[in-house]
Amino acid sequence: MKEFSLIESLTHMLDNSGIALGVGDDAALFGTTLIAKDIMAENVHFTPDAPFSHIMQKLITANVSDIAAMGGVAKYALLGIAVPEGREVSAEDIAKPFDAYGLKLIGGDTTSSAGGLFVSLTVIGERNEYVLKRSGAKAGDMLFLSRPAGRVRQLLDRELAGNTENYNHYLVRAETALGDFLGRTGIANSCIDVSDGIGRDASHIAQQSGVKIVVESAKVLCDGYSAEYALGSGEEFSLLFTVPADRVAELTAAYPAVICIGRVEEGSGVWLEKDGSLVDISNIGYEHHF
Amino acid sequence: MKEFSLIESLTHMLDNSGIALGVGDDAALFGTTLIAKDIMAENVHFTPDAPFSHIMQKLITANVSDIAAMGGVAKYALLGIAVPEGREVSAEDIAKPFDAYGLKLIGGDTTSSAGGLFVSLTVIGERNEYVLKRSGAKAGDMLFLSRPAGRVRQLLDRELAGNTENYNHYLVRAETALGDFLGRTGIANSCIDVSDGIGRDASHIAQQSGVKIVVESAKVLCDGYSAEYALGSGEEFSLLFTVPADRVAELTAAYPAVICIGRVEEGSGVWLEKDGSLVDISNIGYEHHF
Repeated sequence: MKEFSLIESLTHMLDNSGIALGVGDDAALFGTTLIAKDIMAENVHFTPDAPFSHIMQKLITANVSDIAAMGGVAKYALLGIAVPEGREVSAEDIAKPFDAYGLKLIGGDTTSSAGGLFVSLTVIGERNEYVLKRSGAKAGDMLFLSRPAGRVRQLLDRELAGNTENYNHYLVRAETALGDFLGRTGIANSCIDVSDGIGRDASHIAQQSGVKIVVESAKVLCDGYSAEYALGSGEEFSLLFTVPADRVAELTAAYPAVICIGRVEEGSGVWLEKDGSLVDISNIGYEHHF
Repeated sequence: MKEFSLIESLTHMLDNSGIALGVGDDAALFGTTLIAKDIMAENVHFTPDAPFSHIMQKLITANVSDIAAMGGVAKYALLGIAVPEGREVSAEDIAKPFDAYGLKLIGGDTTSSAGGLFVSLTVIGERNEYVLKRSGAKAGDMLFLSRPAGRVRQLLDRELAGNTENYNHYLVRAETALGDFLGRTGIANSCIDVSDGIGRDASHIAQQSGVKIVVESAKVLCDGYSAEYALGSGEEFSLLFTVPADRVAELTAAYPAVICIGRVEEGSGVWLEKDGSLVDISNIGYEHHF
C-alpha cells in the first residue's frame, strides 16, 4: 500500500514549495498537521468474503501506522467507500475500528460501485515536537523493530490456503503509543512502518539517509519460521527505526519489548548478516497476493 | 457525489467533539483547516472511454468546489487511484488539473484494480475570516446562483446519447474566486455548491437553516431549456448562497454576473414560483446516470 512511482513523478511536476515533507515519507506534513491516505481494492487487498469490519480495521491501521511512523498522533479521518449493488455495509461495522483508535470521522463520500468494493481513507494527525523521517539514520545507530515479524505473513498464508475462519491478519494493530513516544522524545533518528517487508522498508531508510543497514539473521528468527520468511512479511504495521547508541537505554527502559535487529553503518544497501556473510535483502519484500 | 446517510449515521455513533463542522457541510473544519473528500467510480461517475485527464479535472473540481462553498481556499491534495491492469495513466494527465487550481499534491496511494478505475481525492484548504455554512440563511435573504444552471446536464445528455467527442461537462470550473470573496467579506449568510441540483441543494440550506426558500421560475430559465430542466442539472459546481438585502449591492458591485434566483422566507421547504403558484422542488435533483 505504498505509493508507486506515479505519485512520485507527479509531485516532481508540481510546485510543492511550502510543504515540509511530502511524498517519500509515510505522511505529508504541513504546519503541525500530518496527513496520510490509503486505498484498498477488492481482489487486490482483500477477498470478497472478508468481513467488512476487518477490511475497515486494516485500512484504518495502515493509515494510523503512517502517522505513528512520523512520530505523530492520529486524530481525524475521512472515509470514501464505493459499494457494489446489493452488498450490505453497516454503520456499526465501520464505526468500531474508528473508536478503537480514538479517531473522529469528520467526513467522507459514498457511492455505488459497478466493480468491486473500494475503500479509501484519509487520516489527519498532529505532529509531536520531533518529526520522524526516513532520512535521519546515522552510522552507529542501532536498528530496532517494535515487535517480532512474520506473524502477518503466516496468517495471510493461512487465509490464502482457504482457511477463511481466520482473518486475524486484518486485525493487527498500529504502534500508536510507541510512535507518540518516539515523537515526543526524539529518541529515533529515523523511522518507517513495516508495510512492504523489512528488507524493502529498511532500504527506504538506507537510501534516503545515505547509509548501510545490516540486519542480523539470528535477531529476526521467530518460532517456527526462518529469518527470510519473516523479512518477506508485509503489512506488519510494526515500526522499524534507528536509535543512537547513547539513547538505547532510554528506549528500552520505556519499551522493553522492542527488538534490536541490527545496526547502521557507513555505506549503502540493506544486508542480512548470516553465518558471517552478507546477503543483499534490499529487494526482499511483500507483494499483494490477491 | 454527496455523502449518503451511511456517513451521517456513522458520525452520530462516534465522538466528534472538538470538530467545528463535520458531515452536513461541504467540508469539515478543524482549527483553520478545511478538508473535503470525494470519490469517483467507473461506470458510476464516468464512462470507461472518458479521457483520464477529464476524470481528474472533474474530481478535483468537485473537491475544490466543496472548499469554495465554505468560503475557503484549496491548497493541498492527496490522490488515491486504483488502476485496472493494462490501463495507461500518465502523470501529465493528472498533473495538469492540479496545476490549473494551484493545488500542491502532497501524497497519496496507488494500486491495481480488479474492478474498474476508481479515483479518490482529499483536498485541504484554509478557512477565511468567515466560514460559510448551510445553516445560516435568514428570512429576508436574497437567493443567488453564481452562474446559469443547466449547461452541465445538456453536455451530459449529449455524452449519454453517444456523442463521445464532447466531454466538456468534465471541464466545468469550481467557483474559487467567488468562494474566497464570500469567505473574506462574510456577505453570504449561507452557501452550498450545486452538486445534486438546485432543488435538492437548496433544501439542505432550508432544512439546516429552518427557513423556506422560493425559487422564481423566470430567473432560472436559460436559452433553450426550461426551469425544471435547469433545476435537475447536477454537478454544476456553481455556488448557491443567500445574502441579506443590505449587502446585495456590495456583492453585485464585485460580482456583477451572479444571478438573483429567489428569496428566503419564514417557513420550510423549497418551492418553485411559476405562474403565481408554488411547486415543491425540494426533491428535484440529479442522480448519476451511469
